[in-house]
Amino acid sequence: MEYLYYLYPIRTYLIVAGTPDKPNPMTADWVVPLSRKPPLLGVAIAHKRYTKKLIDEQKDFVVAVPTMELLKDVWIAGTVSGAKEDKKELMSVTFVKSKSVKAPSIRECAANLECKVVQDVVTGDHTFYVGEIVNLSYGDAFKDKPDISNFRFILHVGGRDFTNTGNEIFRP
Amino acid sequence: MEYLYYLYPIRTYLIVAGTPDKPNPMTADWVVPLSRKPPLLGVAIAHKRYTKKLIDEQKDFVVAVPTMELLKDVWIAGTVSGAKEDKKELMSVTFVKSKSVKAPSIRECAANLECKVVQDVVTGDHTFYVGEIVNLSYGDAFKDKPDISNFRFILHVGGRDFTNTGNEIFRP
Repeated sequence: MEYLYYLYPIRTYLIVAGTPDKPNPMTADWVVPLSRKPPLLGVAIAHKRYTKKLIDEQKDFVVAVPTMELLKDVWIAGTVSGAKEDKKELMSVTFVKSKSVKAPSIRECAANLECKVVQDVVTGDHTFYVGEIVNLSYGDAFKDKPDISNFRFILHVGGRDFTNTGNEIFRP
Repeated sequence: MEYLYYLYPIRTYLIVAGTPDKPNPMTADWVVPLSRKPPLLGVAIAHKRYTKKLIDEQKDFVVAVPTMELLKDVWIAGTVSGAKEDKKELMSVTFVKSKSVKAPSIRECAANLECKVVQDVVTGDHTFYVGEIVNLSYGDAFKDKPDISNFRFILHVGGRDFTNTGNEIFRP
């Protein structure tokens, strides 16, 4: 097993690049919070990915937060290349205009974090994009905290195996 | 709710800096895989943290992977400052010599990823350390993939709330 899989299972998100007319969603496990003030997050994208080309051109992207209902779409977004096929036609989700970036949001996702690229760093076989979160939209899965009792967020175990977040709270 | 918490719940790890004699473990949610070849991971650490000082001096650290049995230790490591108190005395875990870095590993953790710092980048109020994984030790929680049926990995929901990874596999 590769070294990195000892950090798994980890959360799976969708990175949306492009525009509402020509969206390109990609599945990404390698997403991380980086800073509170300013609010920054990072995402590592393989050099060969079509999404990388789009982000380099447009300098923005959206991190969309899927729940288990979207697992099939997550799989499609992670295995089909947007350079060869129009993922929008294959997926069941709705791409909608974001408020502060050109890249679209996904209506069916629990949250959409709109990011402008402020830095990019080559880290081995990936480029690590630092995005400033400039706007956010979200639904019932979030109130004063993520609602794990009623919503099941996706975790990637490895390969085609996924699981979900538990629904019990533990307090140390 | 702060923007970054819309990415939660996310996995929680322990970052171990220092030496086997003077270990300093810190709880960290902001850990991410970055590259397969070479195997790189990243961790964002607040500028004010004592762990940052130790990593800057020694240029290595260990990412230790706790399971739910260690939740109390994870809480201690995340809330006590190693600059003021000796966390080793407060926690129930055993710090052992790592193979390829000076920073120690934790015997009771499911895996220990030994990292040498290859890059550091200031990202807002945190420093993002890129570590090359130079050695690994692990137990029964990993075979050809993480064993979620028998082991419960820790997810941080926010504040004092934690949950665990599910134990059911879903294949899209």
